[in-house]
Amino acid sequence: MKAVQYREIGKGPEVVEIDEPHAGPGEVRLKVTAAGLCHSDWFVMDLPEEQYTYGLPLTLGHEGAGIVDELGEGVEGVTIGGAYAIYGPWGCGRCHACAEGAENYCPYAAEMGITPPGLGSPGAMAEYVIVDDPRHLAPLDDLDPVATVSLTDAGLTPYHAIVSAKEKLYPGATAVVIGVGGLGHVGVQILRAVSQATVIAVDLGEDKLALAREVGAHHTVTSDEHAAERIRELTNGLGATAVFDFVGVQPTIDLARAVAGIDSFIHIVGIGGGIMPTGFFSTPMGAAVRAPYWGTRGELIEVLDLARSGAVGVHVERYDFDGAVEAYAKLHRGQVRGRAVVVP
Amino acid sequence: MKAVQYREIGKGPEVVEIDEPHAGPGEVRLKVTAAGLCHSDWFVMDLPEEQYTYGLPLTLGHEGAGIVDELGEGVEGVTIGGAYAIYGPWGCGRCHACAEGAENYCPYAAEMGITPPGLGSPGAMAEYVIVDDPRHLAPLDDLDPVATVSLTDAGLTPYHAIVSAKEKLYPGATAVVIGVGGLGHVGVQILRAVSQATVIAVDLGEDKLALAREVGAHHTVTSDEHAAERIRELTNGLGATAVFDFVGVQPTIDLARAVAGIDSFIHIVGIGGGIMPTGFFSTPMGAAVRAPYWGTRGELIEVLDLARSGAVGVHVERYDFDGAVEAYAKLHRGQVRGRAVVVP
Amino acid sequence: MKAVQYREIGKGPEVVEIDEPHAGPGEVRLKVTAAGLCHSDWFVMDLPEEQYTYGLPLTLGHEGAGIVDELGEGVEGVTIGGAYAIYGPWGCGRCHACAEGAENYCPYAAEMGITPPGLGSPGAMAEYVIVDDPRHLAPLDDLDPVATVSLTDAGLTPYHAIVSAKEKLYPGATAVVIGVGGLGHVGVQILRAVSQATVIAVDLGEDKLALAREVGAHHTVTSDEHAAERIRELTNGLGATAVFDFVGVQPTIDLARAVAGIDSFIHIVGIGGGIMPTGFFSTPMGAAVRAPYWGTRGELIEVLDLARSGAVGVHVERYDFDGAVEAYAKLHRGQVRGRAVVVP
Amino acid sequence: MKAVQYREIGKGPEVVEIDEPHAGPGEVRLKVTAAGLCHSDWFVMDLPEEQYTYGLPLTLGHEGAGIVDELGEGVEGVTIGGAYAIYGPWGCGRCHACAEGAENYCPYAAEMGITPPGLGSPGAMAEYVIVDDPRHLAPLDDLDPVATVSLTDAGLTPYHAIVSAKEKLYPGATAVVIGVGGLGHVGVQILRAVSQATVIAVDLGEDKLALAREVGAHHTVTSDEHAAERIRELTNGLGATAVFDFVGVQPTIDLARAVAGIDSFIHIVGIGGGIMPTGFFSTPMGAAVRAPYWGTRGELIEVLDLARSGAVGVHVERYDFDGAVEAYAKLHRGQVRGRAVVVP
Repeated sequence: MKAVQYREIGKGPEVVEIDEPHAGPGEVRLKVTAAGLCHSDWFVMDLPEEQYTYGLPLTLGHEGAGIVDELGEGVEGVTIGGAYAIYGPWGCGRCHACAEGAENYCPYAAEMGITPPGLGSPGAMAEYVIVDDPRHLAPLDDLDPVATVSLTDAGLTPYHAIVSAKEKLYPGATAVVIGVGGLGHVGVQILRAVSQATVIAVDLGEDKLALAREVGAHHTVTSDEHAAERIRELTNGLGATAVFDFVGVQPTIDLARAVAGIDSFIHIVGIGGGIMPTGFFSTPMGAAVRAPYWGTRGELIEVLDLARSGAVGVHVERYDFDGAVEAYAKLHRGQVRGRAVVVP
Repeated sequence: MKAVQYREIGKGPEVVEIDEPHAGPGEVRLKVTAAGLCHSDWFVMDLPEEQYTYGLPLTLGHEGAGIVDELGEGVEGVTIGGAYAIYGPWGCGRCHACAEGAENYCPYAAEMGITPPGLGSPGAMAEYVIVDDPRHLAPLDDLDPVATVSLTDAGLTPYHAIVSAKEKLYPGATAVVIGVGGLGHVGVQILRAVSQATVIAVDLGEDKLALAREVGAHHTVTSDEHAAERIRELTNGLGATAVFDFVGVQPTIDLARAVAGIDSFIHIVGIGGGIMPTGFFSTPMGAAVRAPYWGTRGELIEVLDLARSGAVGVHVERYDFDGAVEAYAKLHRGQVRGRAVVVP
Repeated sequence: MKAVQYREIGKGPEVVEIDEPHAGPGEVRLKVTAAGLCHSDWFVMDLPEEQYTYGLPLTLGHEGAGIVDELGEGVEGVTIGGAYAIYGPWGCGRCHACAEGAENYCPYAAEMGITPPGLGSPGAMAEYVIVDDPRHLAPLDDLDPVATVSLTDAGLTPYHAIVSAKEKLYPGATAVVIGVGGLGHVGVQILRAVSQATVIAVDLGEDKLALAREVGAHHTVTSDEHAAERIRELTNGLGATAVFDFVGVQPTIDLARAVAGIDSFIHIVGIGGGIMPTGFFSTPMGAAVRAPYWGTRGELIEVLDLARSGAVGVHVERYDFDGAVEAYAKLHRGQVRGRAVVVP
Repeated sequence: MKAVQYREIGKGPEVVEIDEPHAGPGEVRLKVTAAGLCHSDWFVMDLPEEQYTYGLPLTLGHEGAGIVDELGEGVEGVTIGGAYAIYGPWGCGRCHACAEGAENYCPYAAEMGITPPGLGSPGAMAEYVIVDDPRHLAPLDDLDPVATVSLTDAGLTPYHAIVSAKEKLYPGATAVVIGVGGLGHVGVQILRAVSQATVIAVDLGEDKLALAREVGAHHTVTSDEHAAERIRELTNGLGATAVFDFVGVQPTIDLARAVAGIDSFIHIVGIGGGIMPTGFFSTPMGAAVRAPYWGTRGELIEVLDLARSGAVGVHVERYDFDGAVEAYAKLHRGQVRGRAVVVP
C-alpha cells in the first residue's frame, strides 16, 4: 500500500509502497479516509539524530480517520464498515489517568513503549492503519472525515486547554487567543461555542486576523509592540481571565504574561520553545501557567459533537498521496491556511 | 471446578461442579483468591420469575479478586501471576460515560447485553473467573485479597456516593450515615479519610453504633423517633450538609429528609425500595437527592489506595466453598457483621 | 411616594401613597427605574392568612433596579447617580454560604428576620427603595433597566439552575426545558449561550413553542401524552442529560422523570407544588433531583454580563404605576408574554 | 494605646503609644486578644524607600483576633463581646471575585486604596484595631485566640493553596511540602486532614523534619543534592501530583520542578523571589504552576473549623507588647519555631 513515511534523518517525508498491515487480536484495521498534517510532524522531522526517538521508518499521520475493514480476534462493539476518528495519545489504558480517559497524561506509556500513531506507531498517512484497541476509536457517523479529521489534534488540543480553564470563562470573562493558525482558529470557535467569554485574537498578519473575525473573535489585535496595551484597554485594565498561546515562542509568551489578569489561567499550547518565568514577582497573583498536551478520550467525543452541531469547523486544504510531500513543504513554509489533509 | 450458582428461581444458592472457563481473545482468566457476598445477591435471588433477568444458571459473585493465570490472545499490560481486583460494573468501554471511566453509568451496556460478573456474566464465586477486558482489573499488589475484595462493591459504592458529594464535605460540614452495615461501616471510614466533616452515624442497634464509633464516627444516634431531633441539635439546628442512606427503606428516607439542611446532598444508596418525595415544598431548598449506582474505574483505584494507606478496612467473615450456602443464609438473616467472603 | 402594596389578605395589590424612606447607616437608597412582576408575588398573595408570613402592608417588587440617590453613613464604593440592579435573596452576609456569595442559601436569614425586598422587606415597586448593604447592588452601567430588571429573578433563577448542572451540559448533551414562560424563555437563551447542549423546549401552546424556537431552542415538543416518547426519540433513546422544569406541577414533573437519562440532573424550578418520587426504582440510576432557589451574587453579575453581550434578553411588557394592578391581573390570568415591568 | 509600628524606613518595628481608634459607621472595633508576626512583615520592612508603598507610620499585624467592643452605626449581625478572627485580604466587596468571597484576588482593591490591616491599614498589633466591615470577621467562639490567630494567614494561605489543588490530592496521590516553617508545618496538617495523599516533607534541618513527622508527614527528605532522586523513588518514579513550595527561593523552586509529575499542580507559596521556568520543554506535560495569594472568606471559616476539630494546630511562641521588638528580631534570625504571637 502507499504510505507517507519519514525514513531518514533530515530527509523529510517520502511517499513509499509498503506491506499492508493486518489486525492482530484486539486490534482494528481502518481503511484510511483522511489523515491530517501537523506542525509537530515537522518538529519531529527537524530533530537531530541524537534527539530523535520515534523509530525509522516512521509512517506519519497522528490525525487519522477511516472505515473499519478488519477486526482482530476478540474485538467487540465495533463493526466492519463503521466510520471512526482515531484518538491519538494512546496510554496504558489501566492506570489512574487512563481510567479517567486522560491517556494523554498516562505516566506509563513511554516506559511501556506505547506511542501514538504517527509519532512512534505507524500512522494514518497510508491506505490502512492499525488501531491497537477499539477504545481509541470515536464514532464519526455522518461527519465528513476530510473536514473532521484535523479535529483529532487541532480540535482536541485547544478543546482540552479551554475546558481545563473553564472556571475562568464565565460570562464577563475575557479570553485571549494568541496565534490564529491551525489550532488557534479552532480555539476561537470552541471558546465561542462553550462560553460567553469575550474573545480577543492576536496574530501578526491581517489575513489571520480576518480569519479570526470570520470564525467569531470579538476583537482582533495585531501582534506588535502595542498589543499588550491594546488588550489591557479592551479588558478595562484588568487583563484577561484566560490566555491561550498557540504559538509558544518567547515573544508570544511574554505577551501572554503581560496581558493575563489576577487569578487567571495561562495555557501555553504551542511548542515554540518559549518559557514563562512564573512566580510571585513575575506573573500575576494567582495566575496558573500550564503547558497542556493533546486531550482526553471524553473530550474527543465532545469535540466531534461540536462539529456535529456546526459549532466548529476546520478550514481544510485537500491533497492526495502524491501531493503529500508538497503539502508538507507548504506547511513548513507557513503557506497552509487552516489545516492540510491527505485523502487516499 | 467448584462454583456457587443460583440455578432455579426461589431455590437460593448451590455449590456445584462446572467446567473450567478459558480466556478468549482479549480476555483474562483469574484464579479466584476471594469473592464477596452481597445483599444485592439476595435482592436478585428473591425476585419473582417474571422480574428475573440475569439468566440461569448464574454463577454468583460480583465482588472478586484473583491471580492472572491465563491470558487471551492480544492481551497486553497484564502478566501471569499478577494479583488484581475486578471492576464490576462493566460498560461498553467507548461511549462518553465509559471514556471517562464511569462504566457504571454506561447507557448502552444493557442493550448490548453487557452485564457485571455475578449479575448476568459468570461471577467470581468459583475457582476461576473470566474478565472480559484487562481494563476491568485494578492491581492489588500486596493487599490481602480476602480483606480487600469487598471494597470492589462495599467500598466503591459508598466511595462514589461520598466523592460525588465532596463539595458538601468541607471542614465544618456534617455528614449523616444511616445504616452501619457492610457499606455503611466502610462509608464512615471513607468520610473520615477524605474529609474533615463531622460524621454522625445512625442505626437501630447498639452493636452497630459501637462499630460506627470504632471506625471513626464522631457521634452515634439510635434510629428511633427522636433521631431527627437529636441530629438537628448536633448540627446546631442547621441539618446535615450531606446524608448517605445505606438502607433506603421508607423510614430511613424519611429520616434523611428530616435531617438534611439547605443546599445539601442526599444520597440514597441502599436499595430498600423507599422513595424521597422531592420538591420545593418537600425537601430543603437546594437539596439534591440522588440514587447512585456502584462507582467508576478511577474511584476503584482510589479505594484500593485508601486500603493501602490503612485508612479503610472491612470487617470480614471468611468461608470456604462448602460454607458458602450457610454464609448466604446468615446474610439473609442479618447475622453477618461487616462482610462475608468466600475463599476458594 | 407612590408604591404598589399588598395590604390586606386576599385583596390583591393596591397603588398607594406612602412616606419616602431614607437610607440609614450602611444603607443605600435607589430611585427606582424599573420593578418586575413575578408569579411568586401571586403565590404570596394567594396564601391563606395562617400561612402568610411576609408582614402587612408589604410593598411588592423583588425584581428591582434604580439610580443611587442617597447614601447612608459609612457607605463606600457606590456613588450617587450610579445605576444598579438589586440582588434579592439577602442573607446574613457572614456565614459560610454567604461568604461564597450564596446568600440565597443562607441558613440564618430566616431566624434573623432578614427577608428579600418585596418578600418581607419593602420592595422595589415604589418610587424609592432601600437596599440594606451595597453588596446587594450589581452595576447596570449602560444596560437598559426596563429591559434588564427581570433578569434579577427571571434570569438569575434559571441561570443558577443551569450552571449548577453544568457538568451535564457538555457538547453532545441534551437539555430539556419544560415551560417557556418568564423563566423558561430566558432559560433557553442561557443554555444556548453557555453550552453547546441540544435544547428541547416543551410547552402546551404553539405560541410558547414559537417563542422557544425564536430564542434558540433546537427542538420543540408539545406537552401532550406523546411528549415523553418524542423526547426519547430526539435523544436516541438515552433521555436528557439535564431537565429544567420551570412549571413544577405534577404532570410536568412526571414528564421530567420520564425523559431524564442515566446520571442526569433534574432541576425543579417552578413552584407548582408537584413532587418527584426519587429513588433507585423510581428515577434513573444516578439522576440527581433538586429544587433550587434563586441564585448567588456572582451569578447575578454573570447574568448581567450575558445581557451585556446580547446573549440573553427578556420579552418585556411595560406598565406605569397606575397600570400595575391591571398588570398583576393579567399575570394572574396567564396573559403576560415574557415579563411585566412597572416603570415609575 | 500601645501599638507596634514601623515608623521609619530601615529602622524596624517600634513599640509606641498612639491614640485609640473608634469605629466609624459600618465599622467594628476589636479589643485585640492576639496578633501574629509574619515573615512578610519583614519583607515589607526590608523594602528600600522607593519600593515601599504601605504608608508611615504603619501599625503592624495582618494576623489579628479580638473581642468586639464598639460597633459603628449601622452594623448588624455582630454583638459586643463576640470573639472574632480578622479576614485580612480586604477587597472591594462587590466585584465578581469579591462576590464569590475571593477578596484576596479583588482586582480593584489596589486602585481603590483598600489595603489589609497591617499592610497599609492600621494592623492588629495594638490594643485596638478597626475592621472596615463585619464581613471581614470570622467567629472564633471558644477557640483560643492566641493559639488560633496565626491561622488567619499561616493557616489560610496553605489551605487556599491546597484546596485549589484538591483534584490532585486523591487517595494514591503524593504531595510534596517544601519548607516546614510557619506555613509549611500547618500545610502538612491540612494535607493530612483533608486528603489521603501521601505527604513528603522537605527541609534543611533535622529539627524541621522532626516537626514535619510530628505533625503528620509520611516521609521526610533532607533538602540536599539527593532530594529530588529520593522523592522520585518515594513516588515510584512518577513524581508528585502536587508540590507546595513554602520557601520560594531558586533552589527550592528547582527542586519543585524536578519532582513534579505529569499533569501535576505546583504551588509556589513562599515569596523567596525564585522563578519557575514554565513551558512544554521545561515543566512536566500538563503541570500547572501558580503563585497564589492568601485565601478566600469561605476558606478562612473552613480553616477555623479545622482548628475546632483538632485537625490543625500552630506551634506558638507568646510575647507581650514589650517583647514584640525582640520577637521580630528572632523571626528575622530564623529562630522562631512555628509562629510568634503578641498578646496585649
